[in-house]
Amino acid sequence: MSIQHTVVFRLIAEEGSQAERDFLETARETLTAIPGVMEFTVKRQVSPKSGMGWQFSMAFADQDVYEGYNTHPAHVGFVATHWEPEVAAFQEYDFVTA
Amino acid sequence: MSIQHTVVFRLIAEEGSQAERDFLETARETLTAIPGVMEFTVKRQVSPKSGMGWQFSMAFADQDVYEGYNTHPAHVGFVATHWEPEVAAFQEYDFVTA
Repeated sequence: MSIQHTVVFRLIAEEGSQAERDFLETARETLTAIPGVMEFTVKRQVSPKSGMGWQFSMAFADQDVYEGYNTHPAHVGFVATHWEPEVAAFQEYDFVTA
Repeated sequence: MSIQHTVVFRLIAEEGSQAERDFLETARETLTAIPGVMEFTVKRQVSPKSGMGWQFSMAFADQDVYEGYNTHPAHVGFVATHWEPEVAAFQEYDFVTA
């Protein structure tokens, strides 16, 4: 069963800044190049009921592919080099068809 | 611009219970009958990094249609009669294409 992996997050960088654009572009380039990543999307979170500003969403064919992504050096490197220093807050959710 | 309205939530009812099935079925029947609700989905939230168990997602053509949904008597009634007494925790997020 395929899994939709999502994360909503708020950047330290100001909205509309070059740092924001750089982060989103680096994320897209890095994460979509990892084997098994499907349907990668970047969306703005616009509900005033949440303080998060962005969402990444991607799909994996199954749990094994998802674990391969999590442990892939490109993902681990992105987390250490960009995610941890540049993200102020985040929450992950993974969805499967009921 | 279309808006994806989502809510992740945890029910008071036990997983696999009849009360859980009833809640999900009532929600689907009630909410999908409201004008302007598109692409309604019910998914399980399976990440151990969140305590939420379910997600509803739907799309609206624009903000006016979304507001019409929020104030529609069927939505208001569902919130009062089912959502408030049966949902233990929830978080809304709305997404638009970046």
